[in-house]
Parts: sequence; C-alpha cells; structure tokens
Amino acid sequence: MLEAIHRSIDNLYPEMVDVRRYLHQYPELSFQETKTAQYIADYYEKLGIPYETNIGGNGVIATLKGNKPGKTIALRADFDALPIQEENDLPYKSQVDGVMHACGHDGHTATLLLLAKAMKAFQNDLPGTIVFVHQHAEEFAPGGAKPMIESGKLNHVEAVFGTHLWATVPFGELQTSTDVFMAGADRFEIKIQGKGGHGGYPHQTKDAIVLGSQLVSNLQEITSRRLDPLETAVLTIGIFESGQAFNVVADSARLVGTVRYLNEDVQEKVIDEMEKIINGTCVGNDASYTFDYIKGYPPLKNHAEEAELVMEASSNVEEIDTANDVAPVMAGEDFAYYTMEKPGAYFFTGAKTEDHPYPHHHPKFNIEERAMPVAAKTLISAYFAYQEK
Amino acid sequence: MLEAIHRSIDNLYPEMVDVRRYLHQYPELSFQETKTAQYIADYYEKLGIPYETNIGGNGVIATLKGNKPGKTIALRADFDALPIQEENDLPYKSQVDGVMHACGHDGHTATLLLLAKAMKAFQNDLPGTIVFVHQHAEEFAPGGAKPMIESGKLNHVEAVFGTHLWATVPFGELQTSTDVFMAGADRFEIKIQGKGGHGGYPHQTKDAIVLGSQLVSNLQEITSRRLDPLETAVLTIGIFESGQAFNVVADSARLVGTVRYLNEDVQEKVIDEMEKIINGTCVGNDASYTFDYIKGYPPLKNHAEEAELVMEASSNVEEIDTANDVAPVMAGEDFAYYTMEKPGAYFFTGAKTEDHPYPHHHPKFNIEERAMPVAAKTLISAYFAYQEK
Amino acid sequence: MLEAIHRSIDNLYPEMVDVRRYLHQYPELSFQETKTAQYIADYYEKLGIPYETNIGGNGVIATLKGNKPGKTIALRADFDALPIQEENDLPYKSQVDGVMHACGHDGHTATLLLLAKAMKAFQNDLPGTIVFVHQHAEEFAPGGAKPMIESGKLNHVEAVFGTHLWATVPFGELQTSTDVFMAGADRFEIKIQGKGGHGGYPHQTKDAIVLGSQLVSNLQEITSRRLDPLETAVLTIGIFESGQAFNVVADSARLVGTVRYLNEDVQEKVIDEMEKIINGTCVGNDASYTFDYIKGYPPLKNHAEEAELVMEASSNVEEIDTANDVAPVMAGEDFAYYTMEKPGAYFFTGAKTEDHPYPHHHPKFNIEERAMPVAAKTLISAYFAYQEK
Amino acid sequence: MLEAIHRSIDNLYPEMVDVRRYLHQYPELSFQETKTAQYIADYYEKLGIPYETNIGGNGVIATLKGNKPGKTIALRADFDALPIQEENDLPYKSQVDGVMHACGHDGHTATLLLLAKAMKAFQNDLPGTIVFVHQHAEEFAPGGAKPMIESGKLNHVEAVFGTHLWATVPFGELQTSTDVFMAGADRFEIKIQGKGGHGGYPHQTKDAIVLGSQLVSNLQEITSRRLDPLETAVLTIGIFESGQAFNVVADSARLVGTVRYLNEDVQEKVIDEMEKIINGTCVGNDASYTFDYIKGYPPLKNHAEEAELVMEASSNVEEIDTANDVAPVMAGEDFAYYTMEKPGAYFFTGAKTEDHPYPHHHPKFNIEERAMPVAAKTLISAYFAYQEK
Repeated sequence: MLEAIHRSIDNLYPEMVDVRRYLHQYPELSFQETKTAQYIADYYEKLGIPYETNIGGNGVIATLKGNKPGKTIALRADFDALPIQEENDLPYKSQVDGVMHACGHDGHTATLLLLAKAMKAFQNDLPGTIVFVHQHAEEFAPGGAKPMIESGKLNHVEAVFGTHLWATVPFGELQTSTDVFMAGADRFEIKIQGKGGHGGYPHQTKDAIVLGSQLVSNLQEITSRRLDPLETAVLTIGIFESGQAFNVVADSARLVGTVRYLNEDVQEKVIDEMEKIINGTCVGNDASYTFDYIKGYPPLKNHAEEAELVMEASSNVEEIDTANDVAPVMAGEDFAYYTMEKPGAYFFTGAKTEDHPYPHHHPKFNIEERAMPVAAKTLISAYFAYQEK
Repeated sequence: MLEAIHRSIDNLYPEMVDVRRYLHQYPELSFQETKTAQYIADYYEKLGIPYETNIGGNGVIATLKGNKPGKTIALRADFDALPIQEENDLPYKSQVDGVMHACGHDGHTATLLLLAKAMKAFQNDLPGTIVFVHQHAEEFAPGGAKPMIESGKLNHVEAVFGTHLWATVPFGELQTSTDVFMAGADRFEIKIQGKGGHGGYPHQTKDAIVLGSQLVSNLQEITSRRLDPLETAVLTIGIFESGQAFNVVADSARLVGTVRYLNEDVQEKVIDEMEKIINGTCVGNDASYTFDYIKGYPPLKNHAEEAELVMEASSNVEEIDTANDVAPVMAGEDFAYYTMEKPGAYFFTGAKTEDHPYPHHHPKFNIEERAMPVAAKTLISAYFAYQEK
Repeated sequence: MLEAIHRSIDNLYPEMVDVRRYLHQYPELSFQETKTAQYIADYYEKLGIPYETNIGGNGVIATLKGNKPGKTIALRADFDALPIQEENDLPYKSQVDGVMHACGHDGHTATLLLLAKAMKAFQNDLPGTIVFVHQHAEEFAPGGAKPMIESGKLNHVEAVFGTHLWATVPFGELQTSTDVFMAGADRFEIKIQGKGGHGGYPHQTKDAIVLGSQLVSNLQEITSRRLDPLETAVLTIGIFESGQAFNVVADSARLVGTVRYLNEDVQEKVIDEMEKIINGTCVGNDASYTFDYIKGYPPLKNHAEEAELVMEASSNVEEIDTANDVAPVMAGEDFAYYTMEKPGAYFFTGAKTEDHPYPHHHPKFNIEERAMPVAAKTLISAYFAYQEK
Repeated sequence: MLEAIHRSIDNLYPEMVDVRRYLHQYPELSFQETKTAQYIADYYEKLGIPYETNIGGNGVIATLKGNKPGKTIALRADFDALPIQEENDLPYKSQVDGVMHACGHDGHTATLLLLAKAMKAFQNDLPGTIVFVHQHAEEFAPGGAKPMIESGKLNHVEAVFGTHLWATVPFGELQTSTDVFMAGADRFEIKIQGKGGHGGYPHQTKDAIVLGSQLVSNLQEITSRRLDPLETAVLTIGIFESGQAFNVVADSARLVGTVRYLNEDVQEKVIDEMEKIINGTCVGNDASYTFDYIKGYPPLKNHAEEAELVMEASSNVEEIDTANDVAPVMAGEDFAYYTMEKPGAYFFTGAKTEDHPYPHHHPKFNIEERAMPVAAKTLISAYFAYQEK
C-alpha cells in the first residue's frame, strides 16, 4: 500500500506546488495567521476530513481515522511567516509588504495538506489514525506548539513526527538525530545605566560604552572558562547600541543577544554566570543594570527509537539517497514541546535548490519544491513503520 | 570716558535683552544663518556704522573708526545655533523646530550689537578703531573663523578679544588663561568590517561586537600608557553602534568619538597610537576597518599679555568680583584661529543662572542675561586698556 | 580456565602489593627509569618468560607464547614516576627526594608482572600469545609509546589493551569509551617582548603586563567565538610571569599553557587562531613575540568493537559492578599511539580509596590496591574475549 | 665673600672627589648606613664643627654658627645606597656585593662635607647659621626625612635647601619648579584568590590569570576615564605573577605596582577607584582579594619664592648657564617632608656625563663629578640670598 500511496503523492505534486505558491503569496506573521488557518480549514472541509480550528490559538487539527485498527499518530506542519521583505523576483512572490515565507512553512503546509488528500483515498485500508497538526506561530516564542498541546486535543496521540524542508541540506538527503537534534534558543537584553556627560570631562561620568565593552569581553569567559568543555553553549551578543553624539559620554548601553544550549543544566549555569559577570562589571563601574533573560524553546530532543525508525522508513522513499544521524543544529524549533510529551522524531528533508543558495530567513530564500513530496512520503512511511512497531 | 560708556551700556540693557530674546526665537544652524546675518546687517545699517556682509560665508564685519588716533582692535561674537529641540517653557522660546540657541550665541550677538550702539555715541572721542566681528558657524567644524580670517578683511586688525557667556561660571566671575585656554577638539569615526552570520554559529563569522569591544578597551591604553602623564588628552567614544538582530552575529560596528588635547604633538601621538591599536585589533580578528580622523579646532591659546590685560581691565567693571587665570577647559572654540594670527585673548563671562543650572548644549540651557552688559563692559575696557598699552 | 586464572590472580595479590610497594619506594623520572626497567627484566628472568630490554628507550617487552593457536595481543603498563615530593606518611613512602609514583604506574607494573606470573602457569592451555608491554616515560611528551612502536617490536601484535588505575572512579566501576576516550594535550609558551622603563614614564615603554593581559582576554575568544560550539577545546594559560620591580614597567612577559582537544582539525584551528591573536595583539602594541607550540599526545581514540569487548568481558570479573561508556576525559595519555596502529581499547579501573580522596599528581595521591587484581582480571578477560572474536 | 667661597670650593674639588670615591666604594643600604654616618661624624669632628648623630635613625646634623646675625638655614644631603650590583669598571667601584651608590648620594655627601669645610674658614664673617643635614634612607619609604624632622632637631630651622645631582640634566643646567617638582610615589600589592584545578577542567576552577588580566585592563580605565584629564597620575603594574604549571589553572595571582601623582586629591581618588575596580572584577569572578596600598613619599612641592631665589642665586655660579622652571618629575623624593614644614626648594644640578649616559638606578650609573662643586656653590649662594631676603 505504501508504494501506492507514494505514487499517489507523486500524482498530486502539481497541486502541492499550487498550494504552496498560493500560500507563499499571502504570508502571515506569527499569531496573526488567521487567513492561512481558514485556508487550511477550508481544504479539509473540501476533503471531507473532520477538523477543528482555533486550537491553542490559530492551530488547526484534522483527523483521518482509518478503517483498520492501529495507533494514533500526529504529523505536524507549521504555517506562519516572517517579518522579511521578499527580494525574490518570482511570479508567486509575496504580495504582503514586509512579510515573507522565508523559512519554508508554506511548503510544510502544502506537504501536509496534499498528504491528507492522498490518504483520504486510502482510508478504507488505513490502519490507525492520522492526526494532521497544522501549527501556527513557530517563528516567535512562546510559539504555537505549547498552547496546542495544552489544549488537550493531542492527549490521545501516541507518537508525533515532523519535518523541516531544509535549504542547506542537499535534495535526496535526510538528516535527523537520535538525541538532541536542535538547540535551546533564548534571548536576553542587558541595559546598563551609567552617567552621561561632556566628552571632554570623563571623570564626571560613568562611561556606558567603556563598561559595555568590558562586559562583552568578560562574557566571553562563560564559554571559555565557566562551562564544562564537553558541553555545548553559544552566547552571542547581536546588538550593541550606545550613545548618540560623538562628543558626549554615553549614559546607557543596550546589549541584546541569544544563548544556545543543548541541555538545561547548561542553560541555568549560563544564566547564573551572566548575572554574576554583569553584576561584577557594573559594581566595578558603580553603575546599575537590568538583565532580562527570556527563555525560548527548549532543546529539541528526538526519541532514539523513533529517529531510527524515520531513517529506516526513509529507505522506502526512492528520492532519498542517504539518511544521516547528525550533530545538533544550533537553531531552535518548538517541535521540542511535542517530543517532551510523546515519542517522536523531527527530521530535515533536503531541499537545497541547485542554483539559488540562500539560507533560511534570507530575503532571497527559496526551497526545492520537489522536496515536498519527498517529505510527504517520508512522513507517511514513518507512520506505517510506527504502526508495525 | 570708560565710566560713561559703562553707564550707557547699562542704559541699553533692556534693548540688549529684547535683541537677545528675538534672536533666541529664530535660531539658525551653522552655515545656514542667513536671516541672522541680515538682522545684524540691518542693525548696523540703522546705527549708521559701515559694515560688510558675506565675509567668509555668512560673516558680518562692522567698523567704527574713532576720531582719535589709536589701534585697530577686533571684538568678536558668534551667532549660530544648535540642532537641539528646546525644552524650556519661555515666552521667547525657539520658534524653530529642532533648532535652539543652546550655547548663548544669541547673547553674544546682542552684547556686541548693543556695545556698537553705545560706542557710536562716543565716536568723536574714541581712540582707534573697533572692528565688530560677527562670526557665523562656530558650532560646526571647520567653522566660520577660518574663512573670515582668510577673507583678508581682518588683516589690518592689531589685536582681537572675545568672550563666551558661560553658564557654569558664577555671575561676577571672569575666567581666562595666560596660556592654552580651550582644548583642541577632533572627531573620529571607526568602521569595523567583520563577517556576519547565524548567532548559533560564531565560528563562521567575525564578530564585530566582540572586536569593537576589544577595541574600546584597547584604546583606553592611549591615555593610560602611551602619552606622557604630564600631558593632557581625552579620547571619548561617544557612539557604539553594531548589529540589528539579537540572534545574528553583527558584521560591522561603528565607533564615533572625540579627542581633546592641548598641544599638537599630543594630537599627532594620539592619532598614531589609535591607528596602531585599531590595526592590531583588526589583524587579530582578521577584519578590516576604515578610520577617519577629522581634525577640528586647534587648542585656543591666549597671548599671556593680552590675557593679563583683560583680567586687569575687568577690575573697572563693577559687577566683576574676581578674575581668574584657570586651567584649560576641555571644550573647543574656533576663536583659536584669531589668536594664532593676532595678539588677543578669549575669556568667560560668568553667566550662571541662579535657579536653572543646565550646561551648554542642554535642551534646558539658559543664561543669566545680566551677564551681557558685563561682557560688553569688559570687552570695551580691554579695548581701552589695549589702546594704552 | 578464566575462572581459574582469576583465582590464581587473587592468590598472588599479596605479592602484587609487595611489588607495587617496592616500586613505590624507588620511583624514577620519565626517560631515567633504568632501575625499574632492570627490576622488570629480572622479574621476567625469574619467571622464565623471554623478554627484551631497551625497546625504544627503557621499554621492556616480554612474550608468553601459549601452546594453543591464537592471536597475539599486547597488554600495556607504564612505569615512570613524577617530579613530586610525596607527602604521604606511609611505610612504603618514596625514598627518592622529589620523585613520586603519584599516578599509579607502580600499580600498573605490579598488575602486569603478577598477571604474567599467573599466566605462566597456564601456558600449556593458553591460546595465542600475550605480549607484556612495559612502557617507560608516559608522563613526559614525546613519551615512550611512540619509540616502542617505532622499534618494530610490536608490529606483529594484533590488538592492544591497557588500563589506568583511576583514583576518582569508585572501586568496582570500569570506565571506557567507544570513541575518543582521552584528550589531545599540548603545551605552548608565548614570550612577549615589549620595552621596559621607569614606572612613572609609561609613554617611554611598551608595557608587557598590559599587553599580556590583553592577550589573555583576547585568547578567550578562541573557544567562545572561533570554534564550532559542537567541538571541544580548552585553552588554559597556567603561568603568567612578568616584571621584577613594582616601580619598573616590565619589558617582557611569559605565558605558558595547555590546549586540550578531541580532534585534530580543532587542534589546527586553535593553533592558527592563537597565532593570529598573538600577532594582532603585538601589532597593536608595537611589540614582538615568540610563540612555541609543542604538540603533545594526540587524542586517545578507542576502537568501538574493542571497547565494547572490554565492557562485556568485565562482566566476568566479580568485583566489577558496572562498566560505563563515558564522555572523554580531558587528560592526555600516550596509549593513543597504540590505537592509532592497532585495534584496541584503554579503560579506567576504579581505584578510589575510601578515605583518602586525592587526585592524580597530588603529593598525597594513593590508590586502592585491591583494584590491581581487578585490573589484571579485566585485562586477561579481554584477552580471552578477543581470542574468541 | 660669595666669590671667595666659590673659589675656596673650587680649591677643595680634589678632596671632594676623593671623599665621593671613597664613599662610592663602601655603599650601605637604607637604614643600615652606620659606617657612612660614622664617616660623616668623624669628618665634622676633624673640622671642629659641632654635630649630633643618630638623629631619627642614622641621621647626622652639624651646625656652623656664623659670627654675624642671620637666619638658620638647613642644607640637606642624603647618603644611603641601593641594592644594585655595580657593573661599572672603575678604580673606585663598589666593594660591597650587590650594593651600589647608583643614585649619586655619595656625591651629595661629598658636596655637603666639603662645603662645610669651605665654610668653616668663613665662620667669622658668616651671617646666620648653616645646618648641615646628612639624611639616611632616602631610597626606601618611609625614609629618613620624616624621623629626622620628628626628632625636633630641625624645629629652629627657618628654611631648607637641597639638590640632587641629576644624570639626565646637562652639566651647566639647573632645574627646579616653583610648584610641585617631584611626584608622590606609592606602592600597592593586590593578591587575588581564585580556585586552582586541572587545566582541562576550567569550569571547576576560578582562573586567577584570566581574572588578573581583566583587572589589569580594567585598571587602565582609572587614568583614561576616572580622573580629571587635567590632573596627572600614573598607575603602573610592575609585577604580574601567577601560576606554576602549564597544565594547572592558577589559583591565585599577585599584582604589584606603583601610583604616581602630584596632588593628594588625585591620590585618594586613585585609591578609591582601584578598590572599586578590584572589587567589581572579583565579584564578577566570585573570587576574593587583598589590596594593600602603601603610601610612599608625598609630592615634593617647592615654595615658589624659594625656588625663584635658587634660580636667581644660581646666576652667581659661573658654571651654570641656565636655570629652568620645569614640569614635575614623576620620581619621588622624601625632601617633600621638609618643604611641608619649612620654606624651601629642591633643585637638580645637571650632572650628565659626556659619554656614559645611564639613568639613575642603573648598574652602570655614574655622575659628572664636576657637578659637585657646582651644587655646593649653588647651595651656598641660595643660603646667602635667603639671608638677604
């Protein structure tokens, strides 16, 4: 039956492309994606597959109950877009100023919708139940996964799988991990309050730029000296803003950045050491500060058995040449919340375009659309493999 | 006669205030002060004192030739304003959005215009020639003094005096110096070019914020280690701008600041050491940079005899309690160019308000208006003293 | 037969302790351990097991050829001591001033010698050939393993096993790894040449302490920014020496430290980045430097199958409760060279004393002697397991 | 009479050289200079000039009361040597291992003794009283000046003069200042206590070298940002000592240095800011510290009138071509204590050798001996000038 399903998916490829390109033209920002949710609901309406909307926000869940007994397994796709102005010159370019599907969630949605259409035809022979999870707001913490889970509508699910079309992985390759696959990703903002004054009279001031610069240097010590060298963490300060006039000592400085980590002990240690270093640096300069640390998504930890199952199942997908257990990726993903609750695995479906090599979140980002049916076939192969597990 | 002149100035005080308040309402930015120049020209027209306009730009020079023989002495006032939004709640508040006489040049102009009016009445008995120099563009290097001098219109001048109404010096005090009175003040801008990238993958980037922060710390070494401790210099970085997203490694950083110094050997040494440190810091980070160093006004060095003369002459001004030879002020002033060409001295006339203590260039800056006649009396006293020298 | 061998080892325990304590009293430094080599040779002489001396230096190799066919497998023990003054108060305390078996190599040697004595009795039934490798100079790079291998005397060996009695692992636990087990450990020495001078005249100098301090801070950036966060490296500066008089600017500084790493790409990257940072820091200070980087032992990478085999074989050793595949240990070990040439594995035999918790290389270091027969039994169990592989 | 005295001094030059060279061979360290004190006492004994010994330690005071009325004026010479091994190859080279007159105090003593001899002959006509102050222990704080003053033996003195033969000032030049002539010079010692440990496990330690390096950088901020740029201060760290093994994280660090300053407000500010920075840096690293700040000699502030008097009086000395009022010298001198109590001035007598240009405290230091009679003549000229004041 799997082979027949795969052929069916191939046949639906043109519509898959149409759906994706339509969505690409009408991207919506995280937590504001109501029209996309409506589009998805309408699609299931037409398919005659029961669905529920407004799950934990704009989330949509559709349920295809097979006529054969089996397990209930969720397949998840996210559908929000990013605050980026598209720079591609495409017939299906974003029609919304400053908003763009620059991460491929349009493709994720098309993949899942067309997979649903394909599976509807196999309902009679289908073992178990497929739960199609269309999740809003993956791009912006606290994200949509958490409230969708908290809605209780996924409580009965026995396993969960999901994929990201990944533009830096070659077409034909699948990547996943049997352990932590994607990093925890937090945001912090430090505001230093010194004392401004005339640029020729530094002794009457507390120079926020000199202090902030010391702080940046001191914070390097966290990864170089204060964490177990066998652990992984990144502390990046992405923004340093201070001062407005060349001849005035700046009174304050704003440092904003991100912390990436793979386990929560490391996260806690980083927060503690940041607090200690910020405090000490300010004490030494007689300055005050605020330190806001906003925890983002936790590390996405796959279940080993389910990840192995995905890699094995992918051997049934003819386009997939190689499936690899890779080192963690330092980006975050709120799929993490699903595998904290249920067995499951997340994987990358290689979607590198041949001549258009722009990374995710780039104004010229695009995906190889042929990766969509590959993703669909892999998800459904994993579904069947898990039924037999 | 000096006493009579002083009484005459006192009598003109109400008009002096009116002129100042009018100018305060219509401030103009440096090099754009055409209406103010016209106002000044019109004033001399009405006084019947010959004048010339468009000297080295918007400068105005008026000449009152006394009937008695004597020296030709210039008295200078500047008349440009600043790009600051006034925050005072005054009946004569600035009527121009974002522009303000926040340094007292309105007062300088009123002082000099009314002094001219007073002196017109004494022309018959006046020894020598007074050259009233109304200078544009003091606030913005390269300034107006230089082109006014270069116009050749002041070549015949034998000495030059000027004053600044100074809001942090108490009313009744005069400050000057027999040597360097105000600092050289330069501007620099450093642009660092590293390499941006994903905040979770620092090893693929050259982090401009970490580099810029090292640079700020390293530049401290110039004053702490590389200059003769008996010399004076200040290196202030007033702006540090880098990065736009918390989760992206910044590719570039912009550091803008000022150098203050009292002698030109120190200035050259600072520039050399900055270049060395910027270069080394970038070499160590495999990054590139541009370093623009824009020399501003040179140090204002008074002539010792003329400064002594001003202090002595000020004893004739009844409001002046004390005249002090003070340490240099770390602000710059393009009066420096006059004393590079001619004997002369610059001094501060105490203009601290009793209950409104805001420094120069502050949105709530104001002056004690009673200091204007004090300034006028001191200038004319110095003029007479110099005639007798 | 294995059970009988284990009982035989138990019976030889008192002599094992005697041998270890004798060696403990007469420690010899790396590359100078001639008496210990003689003691080992004499021991094999008495056992009637053929041996060769002066292998690659002071190394000794003894060969016990079993009467049954089988593989040739090397078991390695190191026998050098450390330049440490023993602070234990023991009847068998070191008799040599400033030299101490503070790492347990005395125990390693006793373990292997008594294992040889035990196995001599089983020669008739022994399958394969045991090569007892007594290696000199493990404590001091370039070490004894390399020249012993280069002697060619181990060319015929088919696999190699070794163990370290480890004082921080509990008695009854075995630790090993199926991948990198111990780190690469290098040494570096940086000498900065600035320019000294009077402490009151810094501008006439190039301050080596200020420069060296900048360098220490800058070097933190290697681990924090320049290495892949998923890789492991440590850069420790253990010595900072500069200056001799409080009132004299130091002309030079000496920084000595170590780099630890788990793969050689990282090692090369660290060296490149160190050079870049040292150079840039010196360029910025107009100073010169020398940078000596002395590569020590490479990372010790076990072969996965052999490590698994050791863990399984250890289940035959009654004292061993648990065998764990652990994360790499950041210490170095020249056993690394053997597994670069031959299949094999290195493991830690838990030797924590109950009431004497001092780490390796401490003046009060000691081992739990009961761990010696455990080590012997595990080595011979691995030998037999490998014969059957 | 002054001219006759000058001729007399010239005549005594050979003996002056003999005395100096004798003393040069038998240098004694500060507070241990008993034989030199005895030599001085014996000399006055022979001259028949009354003297007292053991003044405030090893100090010697001799008093020549003239037969004419006049003021009581002290002339001071110091007589201790330094812990330096002489590297000159001279017939009168130091006979004491590791001790050397490397600052010219031998010359000071010879100058004053021979001046005494010369003046004895003029006692009948001498107005006033000369107090010859031979001070011990100038080189080592707290010095000999303070206890000699505290002995009360100089209470009756009305003015005090002293000179230093200065090897970097050309022969024929006199340098002094009408204000601060020499700097305050303090010593500090900072001990940081972190936590040591294995070089491969930085997270288990508090790295004293990284902390100490941060501290050195942070301390630069005192002179660059926290002091009035018009003030003068130097903070030099002359010693940075930390760590003993390349592969062990250092548990502690020792930083020793000097602070130079010209007024005591600056000194207090430096101490406060050092404390603040050390504390903050340690807080940020969770480490502890001790900070010992040992105040040395205060700034040597000449009295303006007495300094002018010296410069004028020096015009009577034929070898002196030029007398200059110079900027402060950043070295310290306990002559400071005399001018805190009495009117007086200290000056440098140019003693640069023609072909042997080594600075004070250098193992090859030497002076131009012809400067000794110049010094003697200037001192006595100042004495006479002060009598007439």
